[in-house]
Amino acid sequence: MVVLSSPSGAGKSTIARTLLENEQGLNLSVSVTTRARRPSEIEGVHYHFLSMREFERMRDSDALVEWAEVHGNFYGTPRQAAEDAMAEGRDMLFDIDWQGARQLQEKMPADVVSIFVLPPAVEELRARLHRRAEDSEEVIETRLANARSEIERWPDYDYVVINDDLSRAFRSVRSIIEAERLRRDRLPGLYDFVSALLEKPSKADR
Amino acid sequence: MVVLSSPSGAGKSTIARTLLENEQGLNLSVSVTTRARRPSEIEGVHYHFLSMREFERMRDSDALVEWAEVHGNFYGTPRQAAEDAMAEGRDMLFDIDWQGARQLQEKMPADVVSIFVLPPAVEELRARLHRRAEDSEEVIETRLANARSEIERWPDYDYVVINDDLSRAFRSVRSIIEAERLRRDRLPGLYDFVSALLEKPSKADR
Repeated sequence: MVVLSSPSGAGKSTIARTLLENEQGLNLSVSVTTRARRPSEIEGVHYHFLSMREFERMRDSDALVEWAEVHGNFYGTPRQAAEDAMAEGRDMLFDIDWQGARQLQEKMPADVVSIFVLPPAVEELRARLHRRAEDSEEVIETRLANARSEIERWPDYDYVVINDDLSRAFRSVRSIIEAERLRRDRLPGLYDFVSALLEKPSKADR
Repeated sequence: MVVLSSPSGAGKSTIARTLLENEQGLNLSVSVTTRARRPSEIEGVHYHFLSMREFERMRDSDALVEWAEVHGNFYGTPRQAAEDAMAEGRDMLFDIDWQGARQLQEKMPADVVSIFVLPPAVEELRARLHRRAEDSEEVIETRLANARSEIERWPDYDYVVINDDLSRAFRSVRSIIEAERLRRDRLPGLYDFVSALLEKPSKADR
């Protein structure tokens, strides 16, 4: 389970999209949210957009692995999709904030790899949010204030990637995922592989 | 400090050479050995070839970080070069066996990343040793017997890479090194970077 977090505008979503297009065996956990859909967003792709009542129903029936309130809106990760992926040995990418990351890390510390994407500068964040031109000036200032407090959470993460160049940041995240898949304690079937390797050939084979 | 180990013939040296050619900021620790130089080997590049007396002098004056006896020959890692690299913040690649790896891990656990390269099959090892055509039949059989006991050391390592395809194995090792450089606790200057990021711009800048 790969957790990718970052303050708004640091490029996390672009990195996540590029990863999913290029990395085999990686599925995105689509979060639920009560926030209003942005014009560029598609239901079921970027989020499942829920009413507050629908969100509360999922949360209260324990259908969310983690949930958090951010900028006055609610976000959560559906339990079913995450458990299906784990059961089938697929890797899952979680595009969630530090509150969600912390809940996942607490619930399954051995299975979670957490990556924090940092912007090269706060002014760069402001510029990106303006370029995106989807939020009002007031919302952008709120997001920047929140970004500052998000950034303070960097010590919670296993890896930190500074996104000063998008393709370099993408390669960094991909290397982290590839490397984590090669950790001795995470390689599926390694014990059997080594046992087979060490098996003496039978006399018939000689 | 990146430790790369493998049984003889698993392709470790080729991977190490390709890494050093392609990866910036990575230096090879050139080991010392009392073993006879093979025709393809160059003094000071593949090894520093020493007499038994010279080796003993280094070992006894604590000029070796680690040393081991393998196939009846002695091998060791000079302390000076390793300490220089650490002091200058350069990464160092150690092409050493499990005995050396274990000594390094014991001496500096936080600084060592260990990678074990496995062959896809023992018969493949035999074929590679024959193709290399540098050792006698008897030496090859000794190396194979030793390879089997080397392979049993895989649980000592952080990462395991199966070399069924050289370019894929190389990419795996490179990903591990790149990812390890991005670990939060290993990124130099990260604390200062985040502090600068969070600094409020002064009024004059607004």
